[in-house]
Amino acid sequence: MAVIFAERMDLMCASEIREILKITQRPEVISFAGGLPAPELFPVEAMKQVAVKVLNEAGQEALQYSTTEGFERLRQQIAARMNRKFNTNVQENNVLITSGSQQALDFSGKLFLSAGDVVLCESPTYLAAISAFKAYQPRFIAVPTDDQGMIIEELKKILETTTNVKLIYIVPDFQNPTGRTWSLTRRQQLMEVVNEYELPVIEDNPYGELRFEGDFLPAVKSMDTKGLVIFVSTFSKTFCPGLRVGWIAADSRFIERYVLIKQGADLHTSSLSQREISAYMDMYDFESHIANIIKVYRSRRDAMVNAMEEYFDSAVTFTRPQGGLFTWVEMPKHIKAVSLLKECLQHHVAFVPGDSFFPNGGVENTFRLNYSNMPEERINEGIRRLAMVMAKYNNYK
Amino acid sequence: MAVIFAERMDLMCASEIREILKITQRPEVISFAGGLPAPELFPVEAMKQVAVKVLNEAGQEALQYSTTEGFERLRQQIAARMNRKFNTNVQENNVLITSGSQQALDFSGKLFLSAGDVVLCESPTYLAAISAFKAYQPRFIAVPTDDQGMIIEELKKILETTTNVKLIYIVPDFQNPTGRTWSLTRRQQLMEVVNEYELPVIEDNPYGELRFEGDFLPAVKSMDTKGLVIFVSTFSKTFCPGLRVGWIAADSRFIERYVLIKQGADLHTSSLSQREISAYMDMYDFESHIANIIKVYRSRRDAMVNAMEEYFDSAVTFTRPQGGLFTWVEMPKHIKAVSLLKECLQHHVAFVPGDSFFPNGGVENTFRLNYSNMPEERINEGIRRLAMVMAKYNNYK
Repeated sequence: MAVIFAERMDLMCASEIREILKITQRPEVISFAGGLPAPELFPVEAMKQVAVKVLNEAGQEALQYSTTEGFERLRQQIAARMNRKFNTNVQENNVLITSGSQQALDFSGKLFLSAGDVVLCESPTYLAAISAFKAYQPRFIAVPTDDQGMIIEELKKILETTTNVKLIYIVPDFQNPTGRTWSLTRRQQLMEVVNEYELPVIEDNPYGELRFEGDFLPAVKSMDTKGLVIFVSTFSKTFCPGLRVGWIAADSRFIERYVLIKQGADLHTSSLSQREISAYMDMYDFESHIANIIKVYRSRRDAMVNAMEEYFDSAVTFTRPQGGLFTWVEMPKHIKAVSLLKECLQHHVAFVPGDSFFPNGGVENTFRLNYSNMPEERINEGIRRLAMVMAKYNNYK
Repeated sequence: MAVIFAERMDLMCASEIREILKITQRPEVISFAGGLPAPELFPVEAMKQVAVKVLNEAGQEALQYSTTEGFERLRQQIAARMNRKFNTNVQENNVLITSGSQQALDFSGKLFLSAGDVVLCESPTYLAAISAFKAYQPRFIAVPTDDQGMIIEELKKILETTTNVKLIYIVPDFQNPTGRTWSLTRRQQLMEVVNEYELPVIEDNPYGELRFEGDFLPAVKSMDTKGLVIFVSTFSKTFCPGLRVGWIAADSRFIERYVLIKQGADLHTSSLSQREISAYMDMYDFESHIANIIKVYRSRRDAMVNAMEEYFDSAVTFTRPQGGLFTWVEMPKHIKAVSLLKECLQHHVAFVPGDSFFPNGGVENTFRLNYSNMPEERINEGIRRLAMVMAKYNNYK
């Protein structure tokens, strides 16, 4: 015998891009590559107060094992906020606390996917959801997607001709990587199809609260009459990612199974982190904290969009997100984003090539830009340099 | 179509015992059922100092996303302590921080097990390891085990006649559930067999530092010349479980794959929790904290063993653990621990029937007792009541 890894490990390989991007940690690099929130907005002083208060009032409980489902008060707060913010109708016992929304994605793969099963997703879709699901060896079908969301006629065609579809995965609000938001009509049309086929939908919504402008759109979960939508979110973008607290809100037939999965996976999420977030929401004005994040990210989005308008060639298109952390750039077909990245790194500018956001690859002329983690001047300078490098590929003119 | 769960979910069912034991949360119940550390020993005051210090000195970093591998300083501290405490020879880059050791078990299943593969384990073995591995649909073979550890001749016989063995799982120090510790000889013999077959071994060691008496025994990992032993531990028993911080220490060919798994599963463990534990070890005397836990648990172990000697019939046997949190009781074959539990709950005493610690079941006359979470008087009273109920089954006399 010998050491043999499970078959699934063949699919889980270290990303070449991740290796290239390791150098973006250096301070001289203007990095649009990560998805990091602005750390200067973290409520560090408040967190000191919160930590001391939690330890004073419930120190032993906060440091002890706790229930898998999560801290009761926090589950209540999440349910109440969701219903207020997203028009949903969930109760405390529909909420399971997870260690970030990444864990919710991993658990969703574990719950629904056997090898060879099909996951339907947007095109492009969230890179780390692909990574999470891959551990369960599914086949991905990327549904053609435009500025309004998945093209529902295409979704229907796929469902009519495909067996073993087990899951639909979507990011309807300020999507990672494109920054796009689904229209109301597409949300309604999706639910009609989903209800007809009785398929579970993962609605991944980490950015929905970070809307800079434009009309509020109800969550897909709010239109869910058959309990098929599994809403996944996190405090990573509205509060602090380092605490690793996210949640799943879903019908109890799903939650009870997610709880079994979580028992086997890590017993429960940090009792202390859960109580700290809950205490923060009781002690401070969480809505005004979010309003402040929105204000800063809106300026950064403006800086990036303005710089792209100023410096990019007209053959290069990009999205103008109404919220969230990302914009998405499409170049003429002959320009490969990976080559562009390598050259940009010489000029200390980084981004993520778009190809890895397509589960089956093959789209090499796109890239994702993050604007939440850089001040305006550096955004402008970074886009200027990026445009300068892109201009060398000037046979698109 | 319809909602269809993955096949693995058929194996992950809610435990009947867990449901029964839910009532043990009530204050009037003397519960020997859980595996909870004594919360009165948690360093609550110190944790306030630590939280403030971490937020003062590195607030933004402690609340931001961080590397999957874990906080560098903490990985160094863990490697140094392991080498000092367990005679191992690991470096910082052999250490991956996990969200408790439960996560290390789940990841080990993910790394090594495809459906139908074989896991070898002790008989009985740790319940939650069975749960974690079950998600990957292996077959368990429980190797006959005595007071010295796995019986190596039996292990050899199984290896000679079994294909697809992918993993050996052991808890050599103060095992959960039995409290037993492997002898030095068995550790050495195991490594001979493991080296011959080149099989990965998970050495799960959450209790090793909690030795009350008797000679130190080196970790199996310290005898590992081929990099086959994956050492798994946690701060849950020596510090605070609520923080959910554990680790894997292993050869880099394993660590690099565990890192990929962790990226997909939850990105990283709480930055704040990691920095708090690290700061605690820098600011306070961690060894004297552990010495205090040992002192308290030794008294409780004494109280339980003394009470069992006083009250139990001589036909009932039990272990006298030299460390850890548990003792293990074997009754005459005709007494079913589940029936006993139901009756004991009427008298407000709880424990965990032993059957679920056998991956393939079938051993119904055993149970596990925890002594870390109850003061001596209640331990005495609980064992007295337990003996009283057991005595009704007095046809064993």
